[in-house]
Amino acid sequence: MYSFANDYSEGACEKVLSALNQTNYTQSAGYGVDHFCEQAAKVIRKRLEHEDVDIHFITGGTPCNVLAISTLKAHEAVICVESGHINTHETGAVEATGHKILTVKGKNGKITPEEIVNIVKSHGDEHMVKPKMVFLSDATELGTIYLKDELQSIYNTCKELGLYLYLDGARLGNALVATGNDLTLKDICDLTDIFYIGGTKNGALLGEAMVIKNDDLKPDFRYLIKQHCSMLAKGRVIGVQMKALLEDKTYFDNARNANIMAQALKYIFSQFGIKMYIDSPTNQIFPILENTLLEKIKSNYIVTEWAPYDERHTVTRFVCSWATKKSDIQDFYNDLVAYTN
Amino acid sequence: MYSFANDYSEGACEKVLSALNQTNYTQSAGYGVDHFCEQAAKVIRKRLEHEDVDIHFITGGTPCNVLAISTLKAHEAVICVESGHINTHETGAVEATGHKILTVKGKNGKITPEEIVNIVKSHGDEHMVKPKMVFLSDATELGTIYLKDELQSIYNTCKELGLYLYLDGARLGNALVATGNDLTLKDICDLTDIFYIGGTKNGALLGEAMVIKNDDLKPDFRYLIKQHCSMLAKGRVIGVQMKALLEDKTYFDNARNANIMAQALKYIFSQFGIKMYIDSPTNQIFPILENTLLEKIKSNYIVTEWAPYDERHTVTRFVCSWATKKSDIQDFYNDLVAYTN
Amino acid sequence: MYSFANDYSEGACEKVLSALNQTNYTQSAGYGVDHFCEQAAKVIRKRLEHEDVDIHFITGGTPCNVLAISTLKAHEAVICVESGHINTHETGAVEATGHKILTVKGKNGKITPEEIVNIVKSHGDEHMVKPKMVFLSDATELGTIYLKDELQSIYNTCKELGLYLYLDGARLGNALVATGNDLTLKDICDLTDIFYIGGTKNGALLGEAMVIKNDDLKPDFRYLIKQHCSMLAKGRVIGVQMKALLEDKTYFDNARNANIMAQALKYIFSQFGIKMYIDSPTNQIFPILENTLLEKIKSNYIVTEWAPYDERHTVTRFVCSWATKKSDIQDFYNDLVAYTN
Amino acid sequence: MYSFANDYSEGACEKVLSALNQTNYTQSAGYGVDHFCEQAAKVIRKRLEHEDVDIHFITGGTPCNVLAISTLKAHEAVICVESGHINTHETGAVEATGHKILTVKGKNGKITPEEIVNIVKSHGDEHMVKPKMVFLSDATELGTIYLKDELQSIYNTCKELGLYLYLDGARLGNALVATGNDLTLKDICDLTDIFYIGGTKNGALLGEAMVIKNDDLKPDFRYLIKQHCSMLAKGRVIGVQMKALLEDKTYFDNARNANIMAQALKYIFSQFGIKMYIDSPTNQIFPILENTLLEKIKSNYIVTEWAPYDERHTVTRFVCSWATKKSDIQDFYNDLVAYTN
Repeated sequence: MYSFANDYSEGACEKVLSALNQTNYTQSAGYGVDHFCEQAAKVIRKRLEHEDVDIHFITGGTPCNVLAISTLKAHEAVICVESGHINTHETGAVEATGHKILTVKGKNGKITPEEIVNIVKSHGDEHMVKPKMVFLSDATELGTIYLKDELQSIYNTCKELGLYLYLDGARLGNALVATGNDLTLKDICDLTDIFYIGGTKNGALLGEAMVIKNDDLKPDFRYLIKQHCSMLAKGRVIGVQMKALLEDKTYFDNARNANIMAQALKYIFSQFGIKMYIDSPTNQIFPILENTLLEKIKSNYIVTEWAPYDERHTVTRFVCSWATKKSDIQDFYNDLVAYTN
Repeated sequence: MYSFANDYSEGACEKVLSALNQTNYTQSAGYGVDHFCEQAAKVIRKRLEHEDVDIHFITGGTPCNVLAISTLKAHEAVICVESGHINTHETGAVEATGHKILTVKGKNGKITPEEIVNIVKSHGDEHMVKPKMVFLSDATELGTIYLKDELQSIYNTCKELGLYLYLDGARLGNALVATGNDLTLKDICDLTDIFYIGGTKNGALLGEAMVIKNDDLKPDFRYLIKQHCSMLAKGRVIGVQMKALLEDKTYFDNARNANIMAQALKYIFSQFGIKMYIDSPTNQIFPILENTLLEKIKSNYIVTEWAPYDERHTVTRFVCSWATKKSDIQDFYNDLVAYTN
Repeated sequence: MYSFANDYSEGACEKVLSALNQTNYTQSAGYGVDHFCEQAAKVIRKRLEHEDVDIHFITGGTPCNVLAISTLKAHEAVICVESGHINTHETGAVEATGHKILTVKGKNGKITPEEIVNIVKSHGDEHMVKPKMVFLSDATELGTIYLKDELQSIYNTCKELGLYLYLDGARLGNALVATGNDLTLKDICDLTDIFYIGGTKNGALLGEAMVIKNDDLKPDFRYLIKQHCSMLAKGRVIGVQMKALLEDKTYFDNARNANIMAQALKYIFSQFGIKMYIDSPTNQIFPILENTLLEKIKSNYIVTEWAPYDERHTVTRFVCSWATKKSDIQDFYNDLVAYTN
Repeated sequence: MYSFANDYSEGACEKVLSALNQTNYTQSAGYGVDHFCEQAAKVIRKRLEHEDVDIHFITGGTPCNVLAISTLKAHEAVICVESGHINTHETGAVEATGHKILTVKGKNGKITPEEIVNIVKSHGDEHMVKPKMVFLSDATELGTIYLKDELQSIYNTCKELGLYLYLDGARLGNALVATGNDLTLKDICDLTDIFYIGGTKNGALLGEAMVIKNDDLKPDFRYLIKQHCSMLAKGRVIGVQMKALLEDKTYFDNARNANIMAQALKYIFSQFGIKMYIDSPTNQIFPILENTLLEKIKSNYIVTEWAPYDERHTVTRFVCSWATKKSDIQDFYNDLVAYTN
């Protein structure tokens, strides 16, 4: 069985594994205040062209989301699209910290300035929660990406309304190297208050780099990390990996491989007349498969059944990663030929 | 600078690192339901001689503590000694999930059945929280260990009072191989409702193995792991490590090295007439150092200043680990000779 | 200015006020375990024809909702319609206790069995919260009511799916005496697991009677009341009032007056060709008013602007209560004549 | 049976009851923004000689405590004496909002500046919670009172350390009219950041007046009230009562009666050679009773058994209120004579 189920099916990419091996026996301080983390933060600040951001290394994506939102006060709420990861696939982790999530429809998985304005307008007094942060992810849950003018417009709206803008960057690498993308890492930092650069889904064993630009959100953030179960005793483990990924082109190369392999898959599907549920330029694609074909595919491949499409079809999700090889795609093509004959 | 500050100053022990390397490119399912975790659970069940326990792999010690206690209902409380880790060094993570910690003095870092009985007696109605769980750690925060009849007596008390007994095993290896210990891994499972086998402080990069024996506490535990930010997408990372540690003697060998090195340090201090604050048989020792000597030591070593002792002395903590070498101890002896001449 | 803004604009109805006066100087136990509360509970059990229910007297509606939902475990969620009070007008009080609210569209403010089934089907694993309770209110936020076969069907669905059914009865009196209603107080108890009989909006100064039928939800409920700030030292204050309301027909007479006055208002509006946003048979009506007329009305009356309707119209809400007098309606009619000439 | 169990055994004092009756049928706005609450706030501001404080009317004492502490950030903690109400008798309501309580021994129920300093000194990094508020009550749980220089010194300490000082005034009236007291209502406001004037235990049916002086704590407080189940729809109910209590001398007269009756009881006990556990000048006294005598007393009186004293004696608590009559004390004296013959 080969798995296209997700982008965290393997361990670390070679560069990261090598860095873990090389640094393993060196002593360091605990809890993420070691020199590996310092070096990683330095590398990231340079890439962002923002010297004054706070950087923290966190165990995973859900922890990052919980931490960013836990900077809010008890009665403050976060706005996101209905399909947002915090709203659907985090077992109520945000609500478990006491905060309400206010959802909007979104468009292609993306939130719009109008939706943000409407939510704020309709929450005017103390009988309702107070919207205070906007959550979005790039790439989105549907694999789509934000364009620079979209993000700029959302950020402007947030600033006008006194909201913080938080970007979930679990697949930020995939977004930034996607065809059609016009955002840079620096732009992301310019146009958000807080965001994270995802490691887990792009070559690390675990770990993400949280970047805090807005001074309001910086104080005591390490208290929150500890309180919310997201601080490693051997914090170095994440610092070493994020440095390895970001000190050279590895982070973007990993993401690019994932995107290219996924787009190759998409092309293969198109050759068989199979349509996509949504046109995603990143490493997740959503082919609409006949159920009979899906069953055949499942005999050799692990894929995600995203949602029923109609009685005879299912929306599926195929994900590629830094580890997906050309030969994996070629094998799949050959199998698809066999299945459809 | 050499660090005796803690037992998580290095990366992974050789066996663990090797296992991570060997398994790195194999695909597996996400979120800890992979075959590496299955194998690790099988290995652990066998060691515990309990086939019916649930086993979960968790990112760290504070997460384990939070998760065990979050099985309680909102108004139920956990009892522990004042020096308990959850009460002092977890940034209120337990309270952040809504649960009160009820503290007792303890004796040498250990809780007594009498203290448990007294707390329960004094919490009789709905105007107070309802004690429902006892927390203890073995080894304790002071490096001391529980004897079998002590743990048996505490467990019996808990069962009579309808309390769950939870054991924090961050340094369980160190306890079980300590001189004077008469408990086995099987005993720990027999005499608790839920406990964890600590990996982070005994050779893993990160990760602990939570063991749930009591059926009350088993349902939906994975929901709690996810909700409390303690589930890795690449859950395999912990499974691979725990299997490597526990499939043979590595776990106990690591702990034994840590204890022997610490006890050697203790012997060295005694040769210089330096007394211990408490007589600990594990990998943490607490020498009472003259401040002038402490300053000299600090020029070459990182150690923890535990508490002021008197105007001229400080209680310090030295911790050894699987990584502490005989030569490190020898070097320290030589330096101590130099400092005191 | 006369207020049609809500049904809690005055103090207590005469019968309740009289009972408070008569019992004022009698001593009683604190915290709701007094003989007044006992008597009130007895009266309610008799009305419900359920001797084995637990009854608790609570300070208000939001507290009742929070308490009912706080019987759930941390990862369990409550399902309600988007317009549900807990989702819109309780400042995230439910989320503040850690629970996620899962919303469905509903129909005329009412939830359907199909919606419940769909939510449960789409929440299948530990990466999502676990639906465990359904919240509905009768009358609803839109003044509509549930019919017996609707409630029966929802209850059956809940039982099949292992969900608790909770009914918010802030305006239960208004529902039960509405034209078209076929439910009795006993039916409400038969067809829910937990519900409350609202006092605040039907003649009490404050206070509601929570009724718990399902044995799962009974244990330790008083701990929750205390912990969630909803227990009065002088708990008698609510017991005295609920007894006064429910020992005879007062509760239903109050509600009937409110409904009749509101329906009279509705009739008056219809005579002026003014349409309702929704056809509500209870004490809340939702006339769609021309903005110019609305402005005139606002010079003498306090009403709620519910939502914009179109550029020239606004959906408004008028609420009547036990205290609304025929003369108030007559005055309004006269004013309306004047405004429209 | 006559009850000395507490100071909330009766309804409202005459003045308060009268005010409720007189205002009952007047319409007003909901949720505490009505003109009764406005008038009450005006009366209170004048008494405090602080025009710029925010005033909110809250349902009870535990809600006040929870609300004051919920102004803190997630990782911030509150310091109080071990016997503090929030630590012992509020069913973990503070922890339920996520905040840790840090306890100190105290002296006669009172916290000292040294204890505050020590707690802050020993909480220096993000692995521990961050002390941010001091909680004290006047009168204390043991009926003792703070002197002006004590409160001044605590307040100064708080300001030096960046802590908020919160005073629980459930029995503030009793403190301010106690023999030996040298504090005024204005002093309380001068020397705290936030406090409440207790109504429930001093003549109201329910309700307390929260006073916020420190600007940091003012924003969005009404959101917290609503979220924490402590806002009444008919908020006027508390406003009317607090105005009645504080617009003239009623509040202090009530408290004075309670104190005098309790001190008369104390004198009676002394005549029988019965000692007090602690010397309290307010409306709670703590006689140490022989168990045989206690049993006799319990045949006619409800009193609180505070704690065992020795094998033959029990520390008891007798509480008087605005409602205690001279004849009640005289009756008790006569009974005591009979019991001891």
